[in-house]
Amino acid sequence: MREPVTILGNYLSPYVRKVLVCLQLKGIAYRIDPFAPFIGDDAFSRLSPLRRIPVLIDGDFVLNDSTVICEYLEDLQPSPALYPATPRERARARWLEEFADSRLGEVIIWRMFYQLGVKRYLFGETPDDAVVRKAREEELPDALDYLETQLPEQGFLFGEVGMADIAIAAFFRNAAFVRYEIDATRWPRVAAFVERMHALPAFRALAGFEDRTLRTPVAQQREVLIEMGAPVAATTLGNIAPRRGIMKVE
Amino acid sequence: MREPVTILGNYLSPYVRKVLVCLQLKGIAYRIDPFAPFIGDDAFSRLSPLRRIPVLIDGDFVLNDSTVICEYLEDLQPSPALYPATPRERARARWLEEFADSRLGEVIIWRMFYQLGVKRYLFGETPDDAVVRKAREEELPDALDYLETQLPEQGFLFGEVGMADIAIAAFFRNAAFVRYEIDATRWPRVAAFVERMHALPAFRALAGFEDRTLRTPVAQQREVLIEMGAPVAATTLGNIAPRRGIMKVE
Repeated sequence: MREPVTILGNYLSPYVRKVLVCLQLKGIAYRIDPFAPFIGDDAFSRLSPLRRIPVLIDGDFVLNDSTVICEYLEDLQPSPALYPATPRERARARWLEEFADSRLGEVIIWRMFYQLGVKRYLFGETPDDAVVRKAREEELPDALDYLETQLPEQGFLFGEVGMADIAIAAFFRNAAFVRYEIDATRWPRVAAFVERMHALPAFRALAGFEDRTLRTPVAQQREVLIEMGAPVAATTLGNIAPRRGIMKVE
Repeated sequence: MREPVTILGNYLSPYVRKVLVCLQLKGIAYRIDPFAPFIGDDAFSRLSPLRRIPVLIDGDFVLNDSTVICEYLEDLQPSPALYPATPRERARARWLEEFADSRLGEVIIWRMFYQLGVKRYLFGETPDDAVVRKAREEELPDALDYLETQLPEQGFLFGEVGMADIAIAAFFRNAAFVRYEIDATRWPRVAAFVERMHALPAFRALAGFEDRTLRTPVAQQREVLIEMGAPVAATTLGNIAPRRGIMKVE
């Protein structure tokens, strides 16, 4: 039995969600150190030079970036495989994961979830309505148009569920947090795919912790998650006084 | 003998440079379609949904994102290996490649090369001096401080030269294009490493084409490169009238 790995992160981050679903599917034991995004001191910068979450801590090994972490977990424990076997399919899977992390991240996280959630509730600032409107009415529809050409009518992208499916689906949890619903008449494949993904046990196991985190002030999240029975790790960095950081939730 | 792959890109992009060095080291034949960054029409968007270069075209297979392309080339032709063999070293290599693509990209490309090169010479606009100053005096020094803790005193990061070395070194060609010199008294490891990397035949083979592209107006680059004997492909997208695009050179 190996020691559980620690994920420094937060249930509301889609990048953290990718890694937790990956760990779940591979049956690798983990604990989460519920670290609030946008908060962090110099000790955090030393663990995460780009001030991003998640950070994986595996004994004395510290690793950043959700995609790099998932590739590491795949190398560490190849079964069940979460990337396809042939070079072209692997490449297409990696590209779709990158599209999700990069473009869905820009639009759903930075222009919607950050504006309507983080900025309003964590910092008490007013969202920029023009940014949110453009994201909802132009940028996200463009991304959905593209995904509609890529996603399968049934099942998953490459046979068994894999990282590309997981990455795409992870972002649409955050879209739901800010009450964005995918129009199933306009994007039937994406709507059905996201519903299918979110119904998987690995996503459902996290949903309760996510919903509760969403409704709990940052300072109480750790305690509330422990009460709920979430696999909470001892704190890695100690108690950090919230401050506005330059953090990116990637 | 396989047909050469086509790289839609430009010798001035560090992301294109990564891929060309990778192709060179693996001995995979390629041609470049010298596509000017920041220019492109809807046909380009169909090949590159995020409007980024490079794009790899391998027969009927089209692939985006420099990291995804290099991983594909590694899968396609594993020897010489450009990623280390053990899971932890592979992960660290991928992380350093991501750090380069992401952070050195933000600072060296968007806040220095774009401002001082592209904006001034391609669009005839005035660079934002405050952005450039902050990049030179704060952001790039911070990144160099981090790299100084990561790079080896001699040789390469993981024994033989690999993608992490290549990615880091690729960005410092663009720093040189805008006359940024690494202070060897402050960052001796980085300065020596970058010099060592740029002296490799795979980097030197590109330097002449890069320097010439830098001094040639976009509309004449293809012709000038053909005259110089660069491996120029037939145009993929036809002649495109330059327009200001939303393209990211990644």
